[in-house]
Order: sequence, then C-alpha cells, then structure tokens
Amino acid sequence: MNPYEYVEAHQHEFLEELKEWLRMPSISTLSQHKPDLLRAAEWARQQLESIGLTRVELFPTAGNPVVYGEWLEAGKNAPTVLIYGHYDVQPADDPSKQWKSKPFEPEIRDGNLYARGATDDKGQTLTQIKAVQSLLAAGQLPVNVKFVIEGEEESGSDHLYPFVEQHLDLLKADVLVVSDTGMMGLDRPSIVVSLRGIVSMEFEVRGPSHDLHSGLYGGMVHNPAQALVEIMAAMHRPDGKVAVPGFYDKVRELSGVERAEIAQNPITVERFKEETGAPQPWGEPNYSMQERAGTRPTFEINGIVGGWTGEGGKTVIPEKAVAKVSCRLVAEQDPVEIFELIQRYLAEITPSTVTSSVRLLHKGMWSLVDTQSLYMQAAVRAFEYGFGKRPIFMREGGSIPIMGFMQEKLNAPVVLMGFGLPDDNLHGPNEKYCLECFARGMKTAIYFLHSLGTRG
Amino acid sequence: MNPYEYVEAHQHEFLEELKEWLRMPSISTLSQHKPDLLRAAEWARQQLESIGLTRVELFPTAGNPVVYGEWLEAGKNAPTVLIYGHYDVQPADDPSKQWKSKPFEPEIRDGNLYARGATDDKGQTLTQIKAVQSLLAAGQLPVNVKFVIEGEEESGSDHLYPFVEQHLDLLKADVLVVSDTGMMGLDRPSIVVSLRGIVSMEFEVRGPSHDLHSGLYGGMVHNPAQALVEIMAAMHRPDGKVAVPGFYDKVRELSGVERAEIAQNPITVERFKEETGAPQPWGEPNYSMQERAGTRPTFEINGIVGGWTGEGGKTVIPEKAVAKVSCRLVAEQDPVEIFELIQRYLAEITPSTVTSSVRLLHKGMWSLVDTQSLYMQAAVRAFEYGFGKRPIFMREGGSIPIMGFMQEKLNAPVVLMGFGLPDDNLHGPNEKYCLECFARGMKTAIYFLHSLGTRG
Repeated sequence: MNPYEYVEAHQHEFLEELKEWLRMPSISTLSQHKPDLLRAAEWARQQLESIGLTRVELFPTAGNPVVYGEWLEAGKNAPTVLIYGHYDVQPADDPSKQWKSKPFEPEIRDGNLYARGATDDKGQTLTQIKAVQSLLAAGQLPVNVKFVIEGEEESGSDHLYPFVEQHLDLLKADVLVVSDTGMMGLDRPSIVVSLRGIVSMEFEVRGPSHDLHSGLYGGMVHNPAQALVEIMAAMHRPDGKVAVPGFYDKVRELSGVERAEIAQNPITVERFKEETGAPQPWGEPNYSMQERAGTRPTFEINGIVGGWTGEGGKTVIPEKAVAKVSCRLVAEQDPVEIFELIQRYLAEITPSTVTSSVRLLHKGMWSLVDTQSLYMQAAVRAFEYGFGKRPIFMREGGSIPIMGFMQEKLNAPVVLMGFGLPDDNLHGPNEKYCLECFARGMKTAIYFLHSLGTRG
Repeated sequence: MNPYEYVEAHQHEFLEELKEWLRMPSISTLSQHKPDLLRAAEWARQQLESIGLTRVELFPTAGNPVVYGEWLEAGKNAPTVLIYGHYDVQPADDPSKQWKSKPFEPEIRDGNLYARGATDDKGQTLTQIKAVQSLLAAGQLPVNVKFVIEGEEESGSDHLYPFVEQHLDLLKADVLVVSDTGMMGLDRPSIVVSLRGIVSMEFEVRGPSHDLHSGLYGGMVHNPAQALVEIMAAMHRPDGKVAVPGFYDKVRELSGVERAEIAQNPITVERFKEETGAPQPWGEPNYSMQERAGTRPTFEINGIVGGWTGEGGKTVIPEKAVAKVSCRLVAEQDPVEIFELIQRYLAEITPSTVTSSVRLLHKGMWSLVDTQSLYMQAAVRAFEYGFGKRPIFMREGGSIPIMGFMQEKLNAPVVLMGFGLPDDNLHGPNEKYCLECFARGMKTAIYFLHSLGTRG
C-alpha cells in the first residue's frame, strides 16, 4: 500500500480522530480552559506517539506545554523538516446566537467539518501528522521529520519564544513547514508568501480626575471621549492613509512585476461584499484591495470605550476614554520603531486640555518567504499534484508573529503550506474545514515530503 | 416649640431617615432596579403620610409611580406651593474602584453624608419634606402645600409629562418649588435662575455584517470604530464650537448687562482645576467659563463603545461602534429641531463605506426663572435668613427638563431652591450632601413657606 492508498483507506478513521481533538475547548485566551488545553496537548502527544515517531515529549512551559515529536531515521544526509502547528483555539463567544451547530460538537454538513479550531489549526495540523503517518506506514518517508505543536498561538505564543531559544539544537531543521494559512479557493490553489507584522497598543486620554456632571461642567471641560475621537480621527488622513509622520518611511514599494503578479488574482467588489457584508471597499488610494490587505501597513481600532456604555443615557463627562489599536506592518517596518513614531505623534497632537498615553501590548515581526528556495519549488509541485493546478503566490494580511522569529533563529526557509479556504470563518462563528482540503492537503503534504527525499 | 427648634430637636432622627431612603438603589436607568424604585416610592409615600399631610397617594404610571401628597388646611385664600422632588438616582458604576464608601451604604465623614442620591435628589427632597413636617408639628404652616415626587428624573421623566397633563387640577399651585440644584458655596449662597434644556441620543455606525479578522481585512474595510471617531470628531470645529450647521441659529446672545452680571462671580482657573482635576479649561472662544456652562449649548459624548474592550487585545474589525451623546440647550433652542439638525448633518458627513444612524433617547426644555416674582423675592430673603448672606442669581448648566414643562402647563412661577454644593459630585463617585446644607436648607425652606403666609 503506498501512502496515498493508505490515506484513502483510513479517511474515515482520520476524520473521527480530528473530531475527537475538536471536542476539546482548548481556548488559550481564557484561563478557565487550562484543563482543556492540557487534554488537547496530551492528545497531540499520544497522536505523535501512535504514528511511529521515535521520540515524543511534552515540554512544560510557564504557560501551556509544547508538544514535540521527531523521526530521524532518514539519516544525516537527508533533509530535516520541522512542522509547526498549534492545538489552542480562539474563543467561541455567543455559541447559541450565531453558530449553527455547537462550536465544540463537530458536525459535518455539505462536505465541511464545522467546529472551533477545524481549520485553525487542529485540522491543518492533523493534515500534516496524517501525511507523515501515511508515509511511515508505507515505509516511504525519505526525510527526517520534527513536529512542534504549541498551545498559545491565539494568545501571543509568549512561551514559545523562550522555548525556541532554549532548544535551538532540538529544533534544528532545513526547512520550516507551517499549515496555518489559507488559499484562494479549492480550484485556485495558492501559497502565502508574506505575512504582516503587528504592533498592538492601548491609548488612554484623561481629563478631569473623576466623572463630571455634563450639565454643570459641559462646555468648559475638554471631554476626554471627545479628545480621544479627535486624536484617533487624526491618526488617518482623510484619504485613508495613516497620518503618523514616518509611518510609511521604511515600507518597500512594490515593483511593477510584483503588482502585475498580484493583479492577476483580483478580489472583486462582489466577493468583497459577500465575504464582509460591508457596503463598499475602503482604503489607501492608489492600491488595489489585495495590495491594501497584503502589502500595506494599517492602523486599526480594535476596541474603544469610555464613559457610560450601559442601557439608556447617563449625562457624564467621563474622566477617561480608551482605544485599543493594532497596526499590521510590512517589510521593512520595525514594530518598536512604529510604536515610537505613534507615541511621538500622539504627544504632538494631544491638546493641553487633556493628557494622553499609549502603551505597547504586544508585537510581532512580518515575514517574507523566499519563493526561489528549493523547498518552495517543491511545495509548488506538491500543490500542483494535490490540487491539480499550479498554485499562485499570495500575500496575506494576517500575522503569525512566531514565524519570523523561528525563521531567523533556526536560519531555515519557511513554507506556508496552508489548506484553509476564504469562507472558513476562522476566529468567527461557524468555523469549518473543508473535507476536500483535508484529503487533498494530506496528498500535497505527502508529495512534498516525498519529493524532498528524492530530489538529490 | 417653634419649627426651627423642632428641626434642632430632630436632626439626628431626620438624618437616620435620610440614610434609610439612601440605602435603596433606586436607579431608574437600569431595569433590574425596578423593585428598588418601588420601595423608594413607597418609602416617600409613608414619609408624606407620617408628617401629617391630609391626602397622600401613589399614582401608578406606565413607568415608575408618582408620589403625591397635599395639605390644604391653610384655606382658599392662602397661596398653594407645589414642591417637586425625585426619588430615583443615577447609576453608581465601579463602586469598588472610586467610591470611598459603598454608594448605597450611606456614611458620614467630615460633616458630609456620602451616598448615591445624597444631594440628587433624596437629600434635597427630604429637606423640603422635613421643613413642612416642622411647620406642621409647630402648628405654623400658613400655606397650602402639595408634593409631587417622581421616579424618572434621571431617565427623562417620560411618564411625568402625561401625568402632569392629566392632573392639572390636582397640581394647581401658585408657585413651584424645586430643590434639585446647587449654590456656589456655603458662604456664597446663590439661586439658580436658568437651566439648560437637553436632547440625548445614541449614534451607531455599522460596517461589515460581522466582526472581521483585522489581519485578513485590515486596510480594505472601513473600520466602524474609526468611522465613528471621524464622525464624532467632525461634530466640533477645531476651536471648540459645535460644527452642526444651524446649531446656534436660535441661541439668544447675552446682553451687555447680562454678561456684566455673570462676570461679577467669575470661576477662577484655580477653582476650576480644584473642582474638576482637569489640566486646563476648554470651550467656545469668546465666552467666559461660566458663560460656556450656563448660557451656551453643548455637544458632549457621554459614552462610547465598540469592538474588544476586555483585557489585552483582540485583533478584530468590529461590525459596529456606538456613541451616547447629550446636547445641553439654551433659550430659544428646541430639542427636536436640534436633533433633526444633527441627524441631517450625520447623514451628510457619513461616508458611503459605512452606514450610520442616530436615535433620540430623551429630551427636555430649557427654563428661565422670573427673578422679579414675589416668590423669588421671598426666596432671596429666606436664603439670607438660612445662610446669613444675600444670595446671588446664578445661571446653571444643568437641566431639569420637566421644569420648563410644568412651569408652562401650571402657569406658575418657579423657584429653584437648591442646597447642593459644587463639590457634591452628583452623578459621579462619592456623591455627598453637606450636613450643614441639610440643616440650613430646612431653615431656609421653613422661612420661605412661613413668609409666604404672612406676606399679605
């Protein structure tokens, strides 16, 4: 039985295993789910053991454990592939309201498996695990394989950073494979070649030392909520560009070739409306929609709050107002430098009638994939085999901050082997993983690993 | 025992009664407090009964009940005084954080009684009730007295408007007395002679149909929180004037005499800083601080909320963002007309990349007091007796919307007999009522009622 036949023969079994994993609500941002995270980690450990890896270990950290597994029987001359995944998931708030089936009771409808974590990232991680299992079962794995599966991707990978630094030898590899991104469509295979960096922060504007009666003081005190909206509005120019001086200074402009490449796969206004429900596209002038999201930096208000937010009204001048903001960054922007530019601009535009501050919440580097590496070329052929069409290169707007870090620390090229679809609703209600993506993903991953061993 | 001696003898008892009333969290803007409102109304009813009024009734309304009481034994030739107060209070959010003692566990510190509702308005209402009780106990009440104590002042008096219209005969009076305002200081007695009107509303800006991943869509969708801050910032001109076209059209400019009168009692920058804790005054150019608060209209953000407001960050583009706003209005501005101007301006400035709406929450008319009425002259003498100094006339920035309405419907002059102090923190944390104000207030109210009967 060759590995592809093995996949065919075990499809039902693989799916049942994935459902078992998805039933564990391993939400890393909510502390009450700690036991579920431990269960999900232990499940991954047993999984790696059961497929025949020679060393499998659960590394405790100050946060959630890192699951590690390796099979190095291909020998010293064969390349080593490090596969990254994560067993933690996003929260699934409002389960009753918007989810058609319960987020932690996986359900198959119309060829899709619905559950929180289905695509992000349990389904995609298991796709890789099952590809390795199939190759091992067929006795055809020609490369060394290492897995590192973390439990804090959705909460900032805080403890994976020191773990990587402390285990550089253990994790040493020739290429880093990540299945935690998406493609344009089942019939439009694509490989993500860039991810944006991020710097997130919290702004605070303060005025009076306590909430004031808006009748008695309204008109003579600068309302901090008003000052905040004035300051936040000043963060963009009227045309949609970020107004912070120096914000774009380090941004590398796209070449004509790159723009032409991107323009080959336009997002239509219809598709935009369908996916987002927004009345119209918006953004920086002189860039197309996919350029704006994939290649340009942003300044987004993720949350804003101040004063009375309960039912009805309350006639106060609030003492303070807060905005939570994240900037997506692109090559060659440095998160700390951008934070400092914003901090300086904030100080400049804050009027003397209020005080303001901004603090850094977290940050992560952008990353670019070398499309010319041997491994990317192998990935292109693997996608062509798995999905029947040559994949195109896609710039995605999201961030996997740990990626840039691992790439640099391990000094290895990265391949973002993503099998998600645009309507997978990751982070939202009704998250799903397409069963066809699961099957073709395994085929693609098998072909990729197999071809690496036979390239010499 | 004359009524003043009666007050002296019962001071401790009166204070204990007030504390009992203050322990009821009768917050009219929060529906879960309905039972507390009913308890507070019933307490007021029993109070009026116990002091010897001849008719006391709890009138149910579609909202909170109106407490009514009367004593008409002074006869047809004596004037009738209608005393207004309210038993509902503002919310007291964040009790743990800023309140030194719990808002609904009254505590006396340094000659002040701290509790939500202490000055606004249970303390002031009870000051009037106790003045009447003392006159009745001494057998010296020379005028007819009616009380109307409502439970929706802090939420717009919605059901008092129809109640007044339906009970014009019941409420018929020669003068309307309201103890729900403040004075400049214990040693600077003053009487409020104008109140601002109000229109409060809720703005909503919507973009996508659901929260979006700020990585995948950031840069191509107009973030509703950003659109809201842009729209809200556009509500003021950079110099602090409200930017809504037509907003000031009906505002009567102050005469030189009026401005000179107001300028006699300036608020110093030091006192401003002491009272508010704000770094600097702010406001419309070419008006003094007290003119801004007392005679000019405002547009204040009372609350703003959108997206992720919990701990840390969450990288979403929120589907919507909301701002709660109230405008204080002055003579001759009409609340509905102002609301319509704002609605029109909002439609004009909303970009096509989002949708917006604004709905009216509640509204109330401004009111001006006739300083020459017999009753105001009596009030001046009463304050002089109670506080040892001739009071000055003060324009206040607050609103008691129902006042203008009752004044007009009952065709009676109004006297705003306010005993609050500038540092009473009404609507904010650590609301208090000064015990000296309570005592002197009763003295003032007794003198006022007594003098009305002996004026012929």
